[in-house]
Amino acid sequence: MKLPWYYVIAVIILFLAAVAVFDLFQDGPGEGDVLYQVSTIDALMQSVYDGIIPNEELKKHGDIGIGTFNGLDGEMVAVDGNYYQIKSDGVAYPVKDDMMIPFATVTFFEIDKTILVEDAGNFTEFTGKMDAVLPSSNLFYAFRIDGQFPYIKARSVPKQEKPYPLLVDAVANQSVFEFHNVTGTIVGFYTPQYGKGINVPGYHLHFITDDRKAGGHILDFSIDEADVKLDITPEFYMELPTDGDFIGVDLTKDLHKELEKVEK
Amino acid sequence: MKLPWYYVIAVIILFLAAVAVFDLFQDGPGEGDVLYQVSTIDALMQSVYDGIIPNEELKKHGDIGIGTFNGLDGEMVAVDGNYYQIKSDGVAYPVKDDMMIPFATVTFFEIDKTILVEDAGNFTEFTGKMDAVLPSSNLFYAFRIDGQFPYIKARSVPKQEKPYPLLVDAVANQSVFEFHNVTGTIVGFYTPQYGKGINVPGYHLHFITDDRKAGGHILDFSIDEADVKLDITPEFYMELPTDGDFIGVDLTKDLHKELEKVEK
Repeated sequence: MKLPWYYVIAVIILFLAAVAVFDLFQDGPGEGDVLYQVSTIDALMQSVYDGIIPNEELKKHGDIGIGTFNGLDGEMVAVDGNYYQIKSDGVAYPVKDDMMIPFATVTFFEIDKTILVEDAGNFTEFTGKMDAVLPSSNLFYAFRIDGQFPYIKARSVPKQEKPYPLLVDAVANQSVFEFHNVTGTIVGFYTPQYGKGINVPGYHLHFITDDRKAGGHILDFSIDEADVKLDITPEFYMELPTDGDFIGVDLTKDLHKELEKVEK
Repeated sequence: MKLPWYYVIAVIILFLAAVAVFDLFQDGPGEGDVLYQVSTIDALMQSVYDGIIPNEELKKHGDIGIGTFNGLDGEMVAVDGNYYQIKSDGVAYPVKDDMMIPFATVTFFEIDKTILVEDAGNFTEFTGKMDAVLPSSNLFYAFRIDGQFPYIKARSVPKQEKPYPLLVDAVANQSVFEFHNVTGTIVGFYTPQYGKGINVPGYHLHFITDDRKAGGHILDFSIDEADVKLDITPEFYMELPTDGDFIGVDLTKDLHKELEKVEK
């Protein structure tokens, strides 16, 4: 029996549709409840700056996120599926698919809760207000705040050359950018205390302006009034390097306090 | 145009085939490089014993693993895709699909490296020998050791009732089983030091006899000569509870040392 050509075409189209539909409903990393992370903050603190996955791969795990690039070349901010690299010149460049990522945290952002924050005069006040309203201090969360901010102090770091210095020493050469009454988006994550060693305990926030042209890692900021959109991410998926500097680095050292000192 | 019935059937079959083929090649949890974990050891130490996923769901993430059951009802050992519950009577029962799991670590076991271990007189000596040959102390690993062991001291714990006691107090009532020249399988995981707060740092091992009828959580053991099969699991995927006791428990306390004292 000879199959007419249009039936063959129909079968191929249906096959592709099946794959597409299945992909859509596939329960795995890439879904909204999964916080996906590349490497650990402690490895980054210990100079593990070589990228382990291309941005093309990272994008599959989230449309919002923060991180850095091969050689610690600036600050990553991802929002609405657009990935930006804020270099030490303060300018946000689009991230190319083949750029390698040594550390990042991303998720597909879904609003689980919206919290109105008023009169947070600085980062510490913001932290206090958020701690009081988080559903639990034991979960991981993603944040997004769109609005006008009276003040934002952000930084970026220059690309490092080998032999790589410690993060605390690289950050000593950071470029600092101050914004006043700026409109834009803050993207970030909350890591519970027991996640220390893996990510920054508490709130780790990056910023990008409304025109997506400037921003950085947030050192300090204030809020008059803004809606903090919260995404509860109870599934934590971390991909660790299997070669390079990560293998031999001493991750038993705690460098969090030293980094906090220079991050002002 | 009327479609002949056998074309409709053919299209449905091809659709299902497409779904099956796609499922097979899907890169996500369930693959061999992913270590899948339910909740954290620190939550378990703090009496979070209510199961959060049924075993039917856990099985999708691994064919080998360890853990416990709703109400801390015994020790879990999974090997070759068969899940066992070793209750405080020392007997290994098959795990039912609807049994709820509060804490477990599983993976699809793939041998990445085989290490011959000789003359490990106790758990500490085994730890020393393994530490010396692990590809990196910074990765997570799964282990499997099939062989004859001169000595194994294992335990299980009785089911707890609410209000749940701390793990350290529940373990104080553990049943201890001693095996001499016993043939069976040791299953376990290595967690790097920075993963403290999430799982037991170092080696966490469970045992089941060759006839799959007895076993438990290993307190001590010795090896004359055995091949330790190592599965490097660079992807760590943790699912946290979103309700119940986990939400409010204080996970900033470190109870590891207290537990070690009673686990002898």
